[in-house]
Amino acid sequence: MSEPVLKRGFASDNNSGVHPAVMKELLRVNRGHVVGYGDDPFTETAKEMLRKELGGEAEIFFVFTGTGANVLGLAGVMKSWNSVITSSTAHIESDECGAPEKFTGGKVLTADTPDGKLRPDILARHMHGFDFEHHSQPKVISVSQATEMGTVYTPDEVKALADYAHANNLLLHMDGARLANAAVSLGLPFNDFTTAAGVDILSFGGTKNGMMYGEAICFLKPGLSDGFKYIRKQGMQLASKMRFIAAQYIAYLSNNLWKDCASHANRMARDLQKKLREVNGIRITQKVESNGVFVIMPDRVAARLSQEYFFYPWNEQISEYRLMTSWDTSSDDVRQFVDRLEAIMSEERVS
Amino acid sequence: MSEPVLKRGFASDNNSGVHPAVMKELLRVNRGHVVGYGDDPFTETAKEMLRKELGGEAEIFFVFTGTGANVLGLAGVMKSWNSVITSSTAHIESDECGAPEKFTGGKVLTADTPDGKLRPDILARHMHGFDFEHHSQPKVISVSQATEMGTVYTPDEVKALADYAHANNLLLHMDGARLANAAVSLGLPFNDFTTAAGVDILSFGGTKNGMMYGEAICFLKPGLSDGFKYIRKQGMQLASKMRFIAAQYIAYLSNNLWKDCASHANRMARDLQKKLREVNGIRITQKVESNGVFVIMPDRVAARLSQEYFFYPWNEQISEYRLMTSWDTSSDDVRQFVDRLEAIMSEERVS
Amino acid sequence: MSEPVLKRGFASDNNSGVHPAVMKELLRVNRGHVVGYGDDPFTETAKEMLRKELGGEAEIFFVFTGTGANVLGLAGVMKSWNSVITSSTAHIESDECGAPEKFTGGKVLTADTPDGKLRPDILARHMHGFDFEHHSQPKVISVSQATEMGTVYTPDEVKALADYAHANNLLLHMDGARLANAAVSLGLPFNDFTTAAGVDILSFGGTKNGMMYGEAICFLKPGLSDGFKYIRKQGMQLASKMRFIAAQYIAYLSNNLWKDCASHANRMARDLQKKLREVNGIRITQKVESNGVFVIMPDRVAARLSQEYFFYPWNEQISEYRLMTSWDTSSDDVRQFVDRLEAIMSEERVS
Amino acid sequence: MSEPVLKRGFASDNNSGVHPAVMKELLRVNRGHVVGYGDDPFTETAKEMLRKELGGEAEIFFVFTGTGANVLGLAGVMKSWNSVITSSTAHIESDECGAPEKFTGGKVLTADTPDGKLRPDILARHMHGFDFEHHSQPKVISVSQATEMGTVYTPDEVKALADYAHANNLLLHMDGARLANAAVSLGLPFNDFTTAAGVDILSFGGTKNGMMYGEAICFLKPGLSDGFKYIRKQGMQLASKMRFIAAQYIAYLSNNLWKDCASHANRMARDLQKKLREVNGIRITQKVESNGVFVIMPDRVAARLSQEYFFYPWNEQISEYRLMTSWDTSSDDVRQFVDRLEAIMSEERVS
Repeated sequence: MSEPVLKRGFASDNNSGVHPAVMKELLRVNRGHVVGYGDDPFTETAKEMLRKELGGEAEIFFVFTGTGANVLGLAGVMKSWNSVITSSTAHIESDECGAPEKFTGGKVLTADTPDGKLRPDILARHMHGFDFEHHSQPKVISVSQATEMGTVYTPDEVKALADYAHANNLLLHMDGARLANAAVSLGLPFNDFTTAAGVDILSFGGTKNGMMYGEAICFLKPGLSDGFKYIRKQGMQLASKMRFIAAQYIAYLSNNLWKDCASHANRMARDLQKKLREVNGIRITQKVESNGVFVIMPDRVAARLSQEYFFYPWNEQISEYRLMTSWDTSSDDVRQFVDRLEAIMSEERVS
Repeated sequence: MSEPVLKRGFASDNNSGVHPAVMKELLRVNRGHVVGYGDDPFTETAKEMLRKELGGEAEIFFVFTGTGANVLGLAGVMKSWNSVITSSTAHIESDECGAPEKFTGGKVLTADTPDGKLRPDILARHMHGFDFEHHSQPKVISVSQATEMGTVYTPDEVKALADYAHANNLLLHMDGARLANAAVSLGLPFNDFTTAAGVDILSFGGTKNGMMYGEAICFLKPGLSDGFKYIRKQGMQLASKMRFIAAQYIAYLSNNLWKDCASHANRMARDLQKKLREVNGIRITQKVESNGVFVIMPDRVAARLSQEYFFYPWNEQISEYRLMTSWDTSSDDVRQFVDRLEAIMSEERVS
Repeated sequence: MSEPVLKRGFASDNNSGVHPAVMKELLRVNRGHVVGYGDDPFTETAKEMLRKELGGEAEIFFVFTGTGANVLGLAGVMKSWNSVITSSTAHIESDECGAPEKFTGGKVLTADTPDGKLRPDILARHMHGFDFEHHSQPKVISVSQATEMGTVYTPDEVKALADYAHANNLLLHMDGARLANAAVSLGLPFNDFTTAAGVDILSFGGTKNGMMYGEAICFLKPGLSDGFKYIRKQGMQLASKMRFIAAQYIAYLSNNLWKDCASHANRMARDLQKKLREVNGIRITQKVESNGVFVIMPDRVAARLSQEYFFYPWNEQISEYRLMTSWDTSSDDVRQFVDRLEAIMSEERVS
Repeated sequence: MSEPVLKRGFASDNNSGVHPAVMKELLRVNRGHVVGYGDDPFTETAKEMLRKELGGEAEIFFVFTGTGANVLGLAGVMKSWNSVITSSTAHIESDECGAPEKFTGGKVLTADTPDGKLRPDILARHMHGFDFEHHSQPKVISVSQATEMGTVYTPDEVKALADYAHANNLLLHMDGARLANAAVSLGLPFNDFTTAAGVDILSFGGTKNGMMYGEAICFLKPGLSDGFKYIRKQGMQLASKMRFIAAQYIAYLSNNLWKDCASHANRMARDLQKKLREVNGIRITQKVESNGVFVIMPDRVAARLSQEYFFYPWNEQISEYRLMTSWDTSSDDVRQFVDRLEAIMSEERVS
């Protein structure tokens, strides 16, 4: 089999590979027999390490994917006659093909946000119909941290949403597919903007930041995970050889791996932003607070550029494109990409 | 972290680790960026390799777990008002916590089988109510190959079921969590007892035989997989870093890896059977045709033995226990286990 | 429009019309405005009347159909990872097109019964796997009273099942589509074989016994109906003009209407049984304890007879047919039907 | 039982009773036996009458409720990975407690509309992500005719939406809970703004306009209703004594009943509007094109008035209330209501 050229691009942080330290831990745990499905010492260690990051009380359940983590985490606390309210740009609304509705049977309600961030005032329109049987009962507010727009909630912003949720008898769910990117952006430990800020359920991801697969559903308050082991199994997300998910979290939470990877990715995004600002005719549409850069560029330019670098359109109506950096993005990658963009821009201007 | 002792037991073939050749391939594909979600060259290679094993026409979709493979494969061809008929010992009936019902919305109907193997005559009771709107419409017959009882269908037996299914406008689904164990038991290539025998949908597993995670849903006839990509995503089984599932299948299907692993596991089961037969007071209840041995032993003996070796009760009403061998089971493991069993038996007889 | 001939047959007790007393009550409540969806005085009265029949504590929710009552009643107490165990001849298994699975997401497990009646000993095979996440957790035992085979549980038999259910932390559900037929068969008030015998959830039907539509879901123990109003609405079973279901129950529970109708239907079934016994070549397969008679007759005879009288085959493999009597079946209907059957039998014997 | 006072109010058109002509037909069909579940001559007649109103080709399925009609009609054409797009004020979004999501497994996407009416331009934001497996695939656009805001689509407006839907490979669904009110508002036969305007699936209701219960799901194009009979049964909406739904449609579509009832209700709404306009301090917020009037009034006034007349708040944030007229609303009802409102307004101004 000939070896394909695998150029690093800016399509998604999941186009990158697995960090060597994660691979090393996969090799380390690969010996002898352990009981399947999570009753093994590696899983216990990984859960304990996660609990420490999250204030000590969390109930942790490993699953395979970010969608699985979000959907099952919600299913753990919603009835089918409940609603979850989120930003219209949230992953659970736009990128999970209806999995939350299918599995929970409930509704996903949305609020438009300029920057992907919910605030109590824009949630108010959905705070009605309580106790009215014709109306799906609001039960959860869901935020993404970092958001799909690359922005990051401060602990105070999270706390305001948690307080608002709890005042209305709702819960606060956080999709942390890029939780590490948010942590290094804020310069804070995970706990400060999750458990300590009032979050109830957390999807703690690592696949976009150097892991191979696996996600942790974290119930941050006691009593939220009753019966959840059945939900995970019925949700087709119970790993038989669980130790290999656990191993990844052990590596991820050791020796600052998560921090180093996320810091690097965020730095590359800032570099990319800086260089793009110098390109005539390009507009950056969102604050670059984590590892995503959103740019408006001419569609013709994007079409040509994407023959060399894979990346996604975000809002086709306004020619907005999304560029993601990763733990393995190099400064050269950034420079060459912007150089190429600049060259195409020039050619297009001439022609 | 102190290193736990990880003794090999007979609880399940998924208590074993990952074969070194699989690990090696995971390392090999871990370079550069590739597009996520399966549009990468490794995934294409793995699918092509699987297609070759299965007669050339299969549509292949990788997922994470055996339950995911079974449930989504069924969801691909069932409406919510359809039924799937299977053995009452089948994994989809007994070990998936209702996932088939939850995700398809349909019914799982069962037939009792002495050895885990369906036959047309024992399916007849469910072949009625066609076109009658009060009755969930039978649509799929599902077999496990090898069965959960360690027995194996011959190609003729599969073909008889496929013919019966097709004559009734049903499809034949095969849960191949232990497909390799069946293949080496029969001494036949996969195709002979799958596509060529009339199977329509196949779960082609490898996790129980040396892989880490990942399963392949194989639609063996054209036209069965329409829209399936959405089902996989909505079913929370779409891997972002798909190349790492693909890599495992590449390794698994190269250099006879699947064959060597399964042959060894089956041989260890036969050894175990042979040695157990010599133990007074033990009864073996099923033919040992793959890598499982079912034995009746006194509950007190089982209780003591399971303090040293983890294994599962199968039918508590008759004190039946299941012993599984794996690709990494050694002859010493077998010998020591039976020696220990024999010793406990003796002690119990004395007391 | 020409008026079709509408001969009374033996296909189902729902082929009959509506009792005049029910029609009269529909006309009586048809005046002025009342609040929709059940907050009206007629609905309150009907619920109070039902509660009195059921021991005084029941939470009552009206719905439209028997299937709706069974499915939503189960949905009120099951999680998607639960199972309900019932007879393989039960309506919820055989005649609801998978509605229980679709709406609850859970499993329906069955036990074969010679006469449609469950007993603790035949349920034992399903009492395992508790606390094991791979196994759908048994939660409800469901009986039909009268059964689909025309047999009737005694209060002691119900109590034995309730005790067995509760000892295993399960609930007992009763499908009472023909509850009145059972009551008159036993000569007992409803309470004696429902609430007082330990039933937890009851579908209290009347459509098969003189009503037009409507069914009552009765939660017989406190705390079982939390959130149920949302389940009913999401289950599409909340009537806007609820007073017209209530009116039917008011009529049904007044002036012995339910008792007179069911007594008559049961008597007609006994007459039918008596006359059929005298027909050479006919075999009655079940005890006639309510308003159904199950007979084995030659398929050719059945085919000819069904050109004049509509009725259903029950078990085609053994040429078994089901004959149902109704509140409006007359002695002449029975006599003429058996005469015709006898004549066809004679002709077939001659030819 | 003492007879409660049942004052006519303006809460909902379903607070009214049943028109005498409907009652009369219920009595007429109540004789003899007919086959259950819709294989009876009355049901055939009713379907034929509906087909004539709808252009001759419709496939008709009777169900119980408006929610049932909407949800099952959508389920007939959606896969679980599809979306339906509707106004944020639509019944399927706001008043069905998540039943569409629960039963179809799909998404309900919304567009904000000032007057409850969708237009192609406001749908554009949802026309993306086609063929992208991460994104729930748009499949249906759903409009309400008349809308929940009392407004009415012209045939051209419907046609524009149908053309837009079809150009994007979507279908157009119409919730016709108040279809008659729209028809008389437009002065057009049903066909002109349904089948002839390109609608694909229609919920044809009558309960809000003089019927007791029952709704017709109408598939207006061939091939849309394959397998639908199973969906209706599994959806718990198959009536056993179907003739009594059929009878109501026979009455409704005979002797201009639907037209007379709806014309009257609409006229009463216009009267109410006219009189309310003369009340100081009241603002009417929507065009009165059918039988609803939306008014802003002081919350204190509304609170006092609702002690005498039941009606619903619509948008509590702006003190907007909904007043519905019905087929049985009298001119005196309107006059007395507005007089009482005026009196309370005066008293409140004084105090």
